[in-house]
Amino acid sequence: MRDKTKKESLNKEKIYLTQSYLKHPLPQGMLKELSEGLKDINRYPSGGEYAKLRQVLAEYIGINKENILPANGSDEVIEIVTRAYKGEVLIPIPTFSQYEASADRSGLRKVLVNCLHNREYNINYSAEQLEKASLVWICNPNNPTGTRIPREKIMDILQRAKGMVVVDECNYEYLGETVVDLIDKYENLVISRSFSKNFGLAGLRLGFAISNPQNIKKLADFGQYFRVNRMAEKAAEKVLKYLDYYQEVWEKMKKVRDKFVWQINELGFSAYDSKANFVLVEFKNKKETEKIWKHLKENSIYALPGWENEFSGLKDQFIRFTIGEEWEMDKVIEVLYDYVNKKQKPA
Amino acid sequence: MRDKTKKESLNKEKIYLTQSYLKHPLPQGMLKELSEGLKDINRYPSGGEYAKLRQVLAEYIGINKENILPANGSDEVIEIVTRAYKGEVLIPIPTFSQYEASADRSGLRKVLVNCLHNREYNINYSAEQLEKASLVWICNPNNPTGTRIPREKIMDILQRAKGMVVVDECNYEYLGETVVDLIDKYENLVISRSFSKNFGLAGLRLGFAISNPQNIKKLADFGQYFRVNRMAEKAAEKVLKYLDYYQEVWEKMKKVRDKFVWQINELGFSAYDSKANFVLVEFKNKKETEKIWKHLKENSIYALPGWENEFSGLKDQFIRFTIGEEWEMDKVIEVLYDYVNKKQKPA
Repeated sequence: MRDKTKKESLNKEKIYLTQSYLKHPLPQGMLKELSEGLKDINRYPSGGEYAKLRQVLAEYIGINKENILPANGSDEVIEIVTRAYKGEVLIPIPTFSQYEASADRSGLRKVLVNCLHNREYNINYSAEQLEKASLVWICNPNNPTGTRIPREKIMDILQRAKGMVVVDECNYEYLGETVVDLIDKYENLVISRSFSKNFGLAGLRLGFAISNPQNIKKLADFGQYFRVNRMAEKAAEKVLKYLDYYQEVWEKMKKVRDKFVWQINELGFSAYDSKANFVLVEFKNKKETEKIWKHLKENSIYALPGWENEFSGLKDQFIRFTIGEEWEMDKVIEVLYDYVNKKQKPA
Repeated sequence: MRDKTKKESLNKEKIYLTQSYLKHPLPQGMLKELSEGLKDINRYPSGGEYAKLRQVLAEYIGINKENILPANGSDEVIEIVTRAYKGEVLIPIPTFSQYEASADRSGLRKVLVNCLHNREYNINYSAEQLEKASLVWICNPNNPTGTRIPREKIMDILQRAKGMVVVDECNYEYLGETVVDLIDKYENLVISRSFSKNFGLAGLRLGFAISNPQNIKKLADFGQYFRVNRMAEKAAEKVLKYLDYYQEVWEKMKKVRDKFVWQINELGFSAYDSKANFVLVEFKNKKETEKIWKHLKENSIYALPGWENEFSGLKDQFIRFTIGEEWEMDKVIEVLYDYVNKKQKPA
């Protein structure tokens, strides 16, 4: 809880809405338990099989541990999958930058397919593209647009794709929809999940791949033995004891997010409907966006503009805002309101 | 410090001498500081440049931060280097298994050169091998033999090799010798270091590559953005405040190690002279080794035999013992003494 002193100094406080980590304090009891776990960090992580960690994650998801491969954040899941299914990579832009970055590191051919038309993000891979690709990316909800990808659309892609289809569900906790139940139906389905973002463990790094046991075995060959550190292993178990707390936080953030979208549109800008913990806002053109981004910065608010290359194929007239605490988003609206009104009045 | 209760239950206590982590309690003050750092694990690690971490490591080594690339343990250094210098990989066996594992993950051709002849480990790459290889490994001191590789030998290999030469110095803290001063003299030199083993941070994972800025830039292209977790970043700075404590521990362990080597040889077995925190023991043949390993296990002592494939090219008549606390090594000697005497008496 923020105290009075903090409220009074609001105007000077810097508000970072760039990275999409959980901006809420972590459960005190969880931190205390974790801190007791520090005493044996001289010992190696479990490594290799990560049997206990996989069991913990499997129980949370409702699958078997043979369906899971833990990794050093979902970035490493992306890296491992890319190395395992080399060939041509289909990437639905604008989207998360790491699909492209991993393809580059492996020297693979990338096909960037623009899926944003008339302010609608819609994955429109052609039959030919799906025939040729060895690896097909779907980010659900998509980052940075926040768009929900309908289940029927994912199933359609799974049926038509010759290669492996990876559904990045690292924001599952906000969307509440998954295709985990399809891993036995479609042999070419891999799902990427994360505890980093939504459980407030971004600093510890914990992501994991979900698929059938054959695919998981193949993926394991491309990952190192000690991928996940010992503290992340411990944390996975501990955060799940506080699931009620996290669920409350997620519900609260969804409300803050929806209010923010509504307010942005009320101000005359164009916010994309989001099912994640960030909101993409489109402005008239690059010039206006630069002005607004500068105005926000002058008011100590930092967000991610299109030109910073944090996303594949995001144009310059966009800014992505991570959803912070309610007072932070209120402050953004206040500063933008100020911008709109200044602009309309003569100097 | 072990209390009396613990001493009394000695016979039942399991002694693990398999993994080579620091088997001493970590400085209490360091653990306390680290535990305070847990509260912001919801935030991402620095990522990318890791400017502060690199500065901290650079100051410890006495070089510039542009000479350093931090990674998720030195295993990830091995992985990154292997991906960056693809081609033919020269591996001096018996040695650490990860050089081979990383080469396999990248589908590279491996040339395993046997360097152990007449109980002497001596890296004897041929001119032709050094002409053809894109990547040449030297582990100093070598794991599992513990052998010091003379500086002149390393310089000779650097001069003759056409490809990149990587000197794995992850046990530098015990050896006390380095070729870091040669990174400007030889363009083809990369050094791998670690805080995991000797600073008792195996659970957090922290390794780093050292080379000239051009090589470091190239290596960075093959690593992920968030390689090192936030707790490992914090820990690097904190452990260096306790360097005196660690130096005392390392000195103590060296004494325990040397006494262990002497005692093993006194018992009539053959221990290799070690400059690391482990000792390799050679027995008569596989049959004797199996008997002894079983006898140790029956007495709750666990060590690494050649047949467990933890090392590239280690034969079956070997067992590697990590150096634990003095009472643990005394117990090993006691159990082996018992084995030798039982054997000599009629049943």
